[in-house]
Formats: sequence, C-alpha cells, structure tokens
Amino acid sequence: MKNIDFSDVNITGGFWKKRQEVNREVTAHAVYERFRETHRFAALACTWKEGEPDMPHIFWDSDVAKWIEGAAYILKDGENQALTDIIEDAVDKILKNSDENGYFNSHFLVTRQNEHFTHRGQHELYCAGHLMEAAVAYYNMTGRDRFLKAMCRYADYIEKVFKIEKSAAFTTPGHPELELALMRLYRATGEKRYAELSKYFIDEHGKHENDREDDGLFNEYYNQDEMPLRDRKTAEGHCVRALYLLCGMADVAKEYGDGELLAACRRCFDNITGKRMYITGGVGSTCVGEAFTLDYDLPNRTAYAETCAAIALALFSGRMLEFGAEGRYADVLERALYNGILSGVSMDGRSFFYENPLEVDPAFNDRNTSTVQKEHFPITQRVEVFDCSCCPPNILRFLASVGNFLYGVDEDTLYIHQYMDSEAVLEDGTLAVRTAYPADGKILISCRTAKARLAVRIPGWCESFRLNRPYELKNGYAYVTLTGEDEIEVDLEMPVRLVRANRRVHEDAGRVAVMRGPVVYCAEGVDNGPDIRSIAVAGDGQFALLDSEFLLPALRTVGYRPKETEELYVKDSDDYEEIPLTLIPYYAFANRGTTEMALWLLKK
Amino acid sequence: MKNIDFSDVNITGGFWKKRQEVNREVTAHAVYERFRETHRFAALACTWKEGEPDMPHIFWDSDVAKWIEGAAYILKDGENQALTDIIEDAVDKILKNSDENGYFNSHFLVTRQNEHFTHRGQHELYCAGHLMEAAVAYYNMTGRDRFLKAMCRYADYIEKVFKIEKSAAFTTPGHPELELALMRLYRATGEKRYAELSKYFIDEHGKHENDREDDGLFNEYYNQDEMPLRDRKTAEGHCVRALYLLCGMADVAKEYGDGELLAACRRCFDNITGKRMYITGGVGSTCVGEAFTLDYDLPNRTAYAETCAAIALALFSGRMLEFGAEGRYADVLERALYNGILSGVSMDGRSFFYENPLEVDPAFNDRNTSTVQKEHFPITQRVEVFDCSCCPPNILRFLASVGNFLYGVDEDTLYIHQYMDSEAVLEDGTLAVRTAYPADGKILISCRTAKARLAVRIPGWCESFRLNRPYELKNGYAYVTLTGEDEIEVDLEMPVRLVRANRRVHEDAGRVAVMRGPVVYCAEGVDNGPDIRSIAVAGDGQFALLDSEFLLPALRTVGYRPKETEELYVKDSDDYEEIPLTLIPYYAFANRGTTEMALWLLKK
Repeated sequence: MKNIDFSDVNITGGFWKKRQEVNREVTAHAVYERFRETHRFAALACTWKEGEPDMPHIFWDSDVAKWIEGAAYILKDGENQALTDIIEDAVDKILKNSDENGYFNSHFLVTRQNEHFTHRGQHELYCAGHLMEAAVAYYNMTGRDRFLKAMCRYADYIEKVFKIEKSAAFTTPGHPELELALMRLYRATGEKRYAELSKYFIDEHGKHENDREDDGLFNEYYNQDEMPLRDRKTAEGHCVRALYLLCGMADVAKEYGDGELLAACRRCFDNITGKRMYITGGVGSTCVGEAFTLDYDLPNRTAYAETCAAIALALFSGRMLEFGAEGRYADVLERALYNGILSGVSMDGRSFFYENPLEVDPAFNDRNTSTVQKEHFPITQRVEVFDCSCCPPNILRFLASVGNFLYGVDEDTLYIHQYMDSEAVLEDGTLAVRTAYPADGKILISCRTAKARLAVRIPGWCESFRLNRPYELKNGYAYVTLTGEDEIEVDLEMPVRLVRANRRVHEDAGRVAVMRGPVVYCAEGVDNGPDIRSIAVAGDGQFALLDSEFLLPALRTVGYRPKETEELYVKDSDDYEEIPLTLIPYYAFANRGTTEMALWLLKK
Repeated sequence: MKNIDFSDVNITGGFWKKRQEVNREVTAHAVYERFRETHRFAALACTWKEGEPDMPHIFWDSDVAKWIEGAAYILKDGENQALTDIIEDAVDKILKNSDENGYFNSHFLVTRQNEHFTHRGQHELYCAGHLMEAAVAYYNMTGRDRFLKAMCRYADYIEKVFKIEKSAAFTTPGHPELELALMRLYRATGEKRYAELSKYFIDEHGKHENDREDDGLFNEYYNQDEMPLRDRKTAEGHCVRALYLLCGMADVAKEYGDGELLAACRRCFDNITGKRMYITGGVGSTCVGEAFTLDYDLPNRTAYAETCAAIALALFSGRMLEFGAEGRYADVLERALYNGILSGVSMDGRSFFYENPLEVDPAFNDRNTSTVQKEHFPITQRVEVFDCSCCPPNILRFLASVGNFLYGVDEDTLYIHQYMDSEAVLEDGTLAVRTAYPADGKILISCRTAKARLAVRIPGWCESFRLNRPYELKNGYAYVTLTGEDEIEVDLEMPVRLVRANRRVHEDAGRVAVMRGPVVYCAEGVDNGPDIRSIAVAGDGQFALLDSEFLLPALRTVGYRPKETEELYVKDSDDYEEIPLTLIPYYAFANRGTTEMALWLLKK
C-alpha cells in the first residue's frame, strides 16, 4: 500500500479546514516572527563572530528547516509571496554560505569550522536531515530545485565522510532524523545512493564504540546505541530520537523489503503503543532525558509527552500502515492526532506546549518552598517560543501536511484511513469525503475509480457502525466492492464512553478517561472548581453535548465532589455533592488561563 | 500540667514491653556497632590528621550523643556494664579533648580549630545541643555529673560567645536543637542562665542578616530564618529543624509564660497537623531540603517523612499537651508513635528507614533508564546505617524513653494520655495500667492517689467507649472522680474503619486508609500480589483479625482486583476478581523483602 500524498488531497471543510486555516494564517507567521526575533533566520548568514551575542545554537538550523518545510506545504493552498520571500531569502543564505564540499551548519561554520563531524551529540546530522526534508518539500511544492541540489551536494559529502572515507569521529547520527530524510531525498531525486546511505546508517547503529560518546549524563539507551537496530524489542531512551529512527528503519525496511528490520519496527511499535503510550498518544514519560522509561510507567502530572514525540509516533504509525492495512496503526495515528499532537498548539495557533501533561495541579508546582533547586513540572500555559523550539515548527509542518495520512491505494483497493472532509485526485479518478468527523460519525464517500474495492477504516474505538453496502471486515477495515462510480455512507456510532487503563498503569488505577470517538476529554478547574482529582464521574453517566469554543462539543454530566471538610483525615463517608461536570477536549486544555486539569477521573 | 518522667514509669507488658526489649537487646548494640565501625566513637579522641581517611563529619557528635542518651535511658532497666563502659569511654574522650573554654566538636577541633562558630550551616550548635541532652540523660539516670558539668562549661562558653560578646559569625543555631537542649540543661541544673540563653536564641531567630548564610541552594525557610518566631503562622523549611525549634519555643513559652510564643506554637501545630501531616504522623513531603512544602501537598510514593521528623513531631506534641489536656495533642503523638516513628525501625530492631514513604512501587523506581541522573525515590528496604545516621539513635532514645508520654499530673488531676501496660510511681501514690492496647481497647486502671480526679484520654479515633464510672467528657478526656483507691475500666471500641483524606489532598483522592485504633494498615505485594494500587477494598467490608508476626493482628477482607488485560486501554467495565486482601500494620511494611506497598487503597 502507498499513501496518497497530501499534494493530491484538499481538505475542504469541517474540523481540519479550520485547524489548517489557523495553521496557515497564524501559526506560520507567529513561528516565523519568533524565529526572526531570536536570530534563527539571521544565523543562516553565518556572520556571527566570537564575543557577539546570540551565538547560533547547534539546533537552530533544524528549527528554520522545519519552518521552511511547513511554509512550503502551505504554498499548496495558493500563491503566498510573503512565505515564498522568506524561504527564498533563507535558501539564498544557505547556498551562499555552504562550504565548497556542500557542508552547511550555521553553528559550526561560525564557531568551530575545524570540528565538523567530531561531536556526535551536537546535532549536525540532525540539522542536515531537516534541511534535506525542507529542500524536498520546497521542491515538491514548487518545482524549484536549487535548494534540493544544494542538499544533494551536502548528502554526497556526508556519504563521502561517513560511508566512503569513514573519516568522521563517529559512525551514525547522534540524534537520528537523517535516516528518514535521506529516504525522502532518494524519493525526490531517484538517486539510490541516498537510500543506500540511509540503509548504511541503519545497519551501523548500535555497533560502534566510537558512537558511545560519553557525555557523563546520558547512556547508550538515550543515544540509541544500546544494540543493533534489528535486535530491538523495545523503544528506549530519548523518545523523539527513537521514533525518528524507527521512521527511518521503516522506510529502509520498505525500500529493501527487509523483513528483519520490519519485525524490529513491529516489535517496537507494539512495545510503545501497548505499554508505553499515554491515552493521548503522548510518549516519553520523563523529562529526564526526554525519554521512554519502563513498561506501564505513565505518570500524568509529570508526563513529558513532548509534542514532537507524538508527531514522531504519528509519522511512524503512518509508515507502518503502508506495510498493509491494519487498523491499529491508523488508530494510533488518530489517537496522537486528535490528542497529544493538537494539545501542543493553542486554539489561536500562536502558542505551544513542548510537554503535554495529562494532569495539571498548578498550586503544587512550586512546592519546593525551601530551596532554589525546584523540581521540574511542565509549564501550565503554552508559550510563543522556547529556547529549544523544535515543537512549534514541527506542528506547523505536520498540520500543513496532515492530508498525507488520509488515503492509500494498492493494486486493487482504495483505502480510507482517516476521516476528514476532503477531496482527492486519484491516479484513475476522484474521491470526495463529506463529514463533520469527529464532531459526529457520519461519512459520505463519493468515488470514481477503477479500483475494485474500497476499504474504510472502522476505528478500534468504534463498537457499532453502519454501512449502506455489504462489506467484509478485516483487520479494522470494512471492504466494499466498487462499481466504478460509488456513493458510500458510513455511520460510526460515537457515544461517549469510559475507558480505563491496564491495571499495571498504577497512576491511573481506579480512574477512567472519558472519550468520544477518537477524542479524549478532560476536566478543567475553570469549569468545575478546585480539586478536580477528587471529582468522580458517574459510572453510568449520561453525557450531554454542549456547544464549545473548541471546534468540538464539550460534554456535560453529573459529577460527585466530596464535601469540603475542615479536618485533614475524616471517617470515610459517602458525603458527596452532585455538581454539573463539564469536560472539554483534552487538546483544548489550558486555553483559558492557568487552572487545574485532570484527564483520568474518579468514577462513582 | 506536667508529664510524669519515664524514670517513674515501668512498662510492664504488651506491645511496648516487646518493642522496648528489642530496642534494648538489639537496637542499642546494633547502632553502637555501626557507629563504632564507621569511626564515629573513635572520632571523639580527636586524633584525626589531614590526609587520613574517615575525617570526622560535622554531625557525627550528634549521632554519638543520641546513642549515649538512648543507652543512658536503657540503664533504667537495670545495670548494664557494657553500655556503661561505652558511655564512660566516650565521656572520657569528650572531657579530655574539650578546649579549655569548654568547646567540644570532634570535627572542628581536628579540621578547623580556627573556625569555631563561623559556619552557621555546619551543625556545631546542633551537636552541642545533643551532647547536652546526652549529659542530662546520663546524669538523670545515674547521678554521675562529670559529663553534665563539662556540658555546662560548654553552654557557658556558648553564652559568652553568642549572647555576651556576640563574637560569633552568626546569631542563632543554623540547625535548631540547642534551644530545647538548653532548657533540659536548665531543668537538670537549676541554672536559670541556660533558660535565658535558650530564650535569647528563640528571641533572635529570624531577625539577623548575618544568619542568612547563603549556601546558594537553600533559602531562609530552609534555615528557619524567614521571620521572627512569634510571627509564625506556618511550619516551613527543613522539617526536623522546624520541629526541634518548635520544641524549644514551647519549652521557653512554658517557662516564661510567654503567650505570644505559645500562640505561634499553636498556629504551627495546627498548620502542620491540619494541613501538612501524613496519616502516619510523618511530616516533610519532599526530599528536596528534607522539607515542608505546601498545605495539602502529601505525595505518597515520594514522601520524605523522615523518621526524625515524626519523632520531633511527637516531642513537640508532648510539649503542647503540657499546656493543658487537649486530646488532639495526644492524638497526634499517638498517630506518630504507632505509625511514622515505628516504621523507621525493622521488627528485629537492626535496620532503619530514614524516609518513610506511604507507597512503594519498586518496579518503577529505576525508571530513568536512559541517564545516570536518577530521580530520587525512598529506599525500599531498611538498612543498618546511613552516612547521615540521625534516625537510628533517635529511634533508640525515643523508644527507650517512650514512658515520658503516658501520664501527667496537675494540682488535682491525674492524666492518662497514652495506654501502655505499665506502672507508675506518683508523688502521692501509685498507678497501674493493664492493657493489651492497641491489640484491643480494654484498659484496667488501678490507682492510689490523693488527686481528686482521673482524666483518661478518649482518642479522637474512638467513636464509642465505655467506662465503669460516671464521667465528664472535655477536650478528648473523660474525667472521673477519684476516691483515693480506685479501679477504673475503660473500654475503647476498636472496629476497623476506613478513613479518607481532605479532598484537597489530591494524591489520596478516591482512596481510603484502613485503620484500627491508632494503627494505620497497608497492603503489601508479598501478601496480595502485584498492582496493589489497583486493588479496591470493600466499602462496607468486614475485616477479620489474623495472627501476625508483627505484634498486632493483620486484617483480612475482600479485595477487588481488575482482571488482567492485554490492552493498554480498554473500555471500562466492572470486570473484577474477588481476592482475599491482607493488610498489615503500616509500621511493619518492608520486613519481608522488597515488595509493592500501598496505604491509600481504592474503595469499591
């Protein structure tokens, strides 16, 4: 199966049209302005001198590159001179300041010209990868190829240094990303050497002593060197590194038909999504190393669940889906999409979370009253820019290209993986999907194609659905025979439901999450008053759908709140007051000021 | 009211006789051996030279002093040449090596002879205080006064330096303890100057810039300097420092009839016990600064709840009780006694906890798989010695003198605060109490005294009781008229009960603690299998009392454990299995190897 590229997909209405509008009209400009103000774009000019302020940081190029990639995707929606000018100016600078051998890095070029490829932990290959992705994106969207050609030269140089001469101080990327970027470069150019280089890195990971640069703090798990990749059974260490690497592994596995590598990808996918993933699709349980920890270790208030990690999980899930239509991959993608990714950006598109906790208890975050050494808790309000600002442009490029994940084709079947109101150009026809999903579960599909079958995904959360055609259900997809020109109606029942976690997730014991369709809900203090963790939702609760300012309905039900007591410890009783309990989509939390929030609620 | 000193009380049977036997026969020797092996006793010889190993640590004198104090108390149980020889040898060394001015500190004398009283944070006055307490104890138990006299000279020197000449680099003790010690020295010697010096320190705390020694890490709250003591409304900072200081404040308030100081003590007591105390009587919610944090911030798994802090809370509660018989003070003392203090020592008396968490989840304590920078979790098994070994000898001296807290007298009333099988010599008669408490609530009191009334405490946890005499209930005490020679029966009903925390304690939301009498119970994995946090206790549960190896009965009831599922997130259901749920006294947790433990349990 092959996904239909978002360049052949138009999102035409509903939830995602609105989110993409905000992404295009607000986020693209807001992130650019912050990056401009913080000298990230200026750094490309490579004019910084020792002693000046604002030394280019080792990861700034990746920030700019992701912004360029996102802005390029937005060009799909129509000519945009403002974005084009910015991209062209950045490309001018990159081309002008690249070394003759193709090398470009706005940090090393001005700070350590003699130390290229000597520090594995310092993001050179990571930045290179993102620049390549940006170049591919800009080329794909516009046909302009000077950036792409420059990045090919850079890739050629990396091939020379790392694969041919083996003259670098290390063997594989410290922060993986280049692996997947090289596969994109290969697909954009048809130059097989880039796929070979990606495969080379994938083959060599975890085999080299010189890759175990000891920074004294993080170990081989953090650095993705714990073992050769084909031996992996679990996802370890720095979460985004692990997932970008898995994307590269999946790409190489597909290109080379590498079953062993695919099996490792599957094992890691199962480990992550079966034992190490928040219900939001967030991953990475700890800020210490931004890392995976242990199976079932999923604390809520201190969840790291970096926005980039949820995006990376979606990217990985999308790739796994291409190995064959299995609903579970699309389910995970959808879970991340509507929850742990969208929570990373404010409703107005201007502000961002790096960490996405599943519980906020602001009163206690400053609990270290006696010391300047504060424990780390996630921030409680999104901000416009971070020093380490990987997430904002990642959101930008991801939302701009979310159409990538909707449709797929193989020899005889057209697949619908995600439901968005949209139209697609097929190789042999057209497809139109009309739906308010996930506001409700009604989907009207009109397709004109020579494919014999349409496969519509029946989400894992869906217990009851209706189709206006006979169908065969297999691996989470309902297969319908096509006649050339078809109108198919799908109705996914979408009652509010209570979900509980595996009993090994001790943090969530005795608690339930409220979901409707793919959307996880949460309760905020601003709606429900204090002590949210003490409020129980009715186990057999009826939920009313309310209009909300968050694109999807809010929920209203009866909650039970223990009566306030003076004493610290009292004899247990059933002394509760009934309150109207309002729940909003988790992605919309923290849009109304700092307030308590809980996702996992008690059940009465 | 005045407490009857434990030297006039014999514990004759039951729970406490056994705990004191272990304390005397095992703990005293085990702690001594560890201290000997770690050179703490040898350090008193002051022979260490620069470059040698085992430099005396700044707090070693306090460890030795607390051991001497505890060993001295044990001498009450009969002649004990072994303990006496150790004490005498230590005293020899202290006397021999004291400076002419009376100064003794085994660290500063050999490392920084010219820096006495220049580093407020380095425990000199804290060690001095413990040495004084030890000297008072040894004098009180044996009448031998050479140690006492030496410590009087030391106190005189401190008075000269701090109060008369004001030549020290700081004004008040950095780690309070001397304040209460000076009051004990005053009571042992009748020398009012020591009380005056204590009052001086109490008066000066929080008023001096030179006391704000900035160590770059901890602030004025940690160092007990945030404000003058009479202005205090809350207990802040380093928990043991705060509570030792409150003991000194209470002592001075009583001696001088200082209502303002007493009011500050009461406010702090109310703040601590009403908002910052674990159900075990443990205090100090964080390891960061070993400190109080914020009202209702009481995490269980990372509770610091230092053994010394629970002891200090008991000492403070005992002092507050002397201002008038209010049951709530004795209730807190009892809560700490049977739970957060006793949990500090293993059943065999050999091993100790410094931290006393209310939940242990060993599988997740090593969650930082990708880094060498591990998060701190309390250890899961008691150990024989710590580098910072304040708790083991504190347990020793506290348990040896627990008889201090049983009885009190004022002009016309004899008070029974705590129930232990014991006999007491009164000024005008005798008292015998026969009971298996807290194994059950039956208490037989025989007293011969000229006092007009007996006041027996009816614990706050007790909802129903019986007395074989007419009584008047006031502030948690039942007052009975005495006739000169009386036999009084008290029967405190002691059903197992479920207790919940104030809804503001978000950590405990939806959970209950199981208690019987003053004893808090917990569930361990070794009895109940994994995922203890997921097991619910029946809300209307019947509890059977089982014989146990822990001096008090274990409890058996029905528990509900969610069925194991493969999936990480599943639709909520009531798919539970009934299991026999065994609970043991909290103080006995971690006596059978590393295993899960939870005190706050779900309720079905």
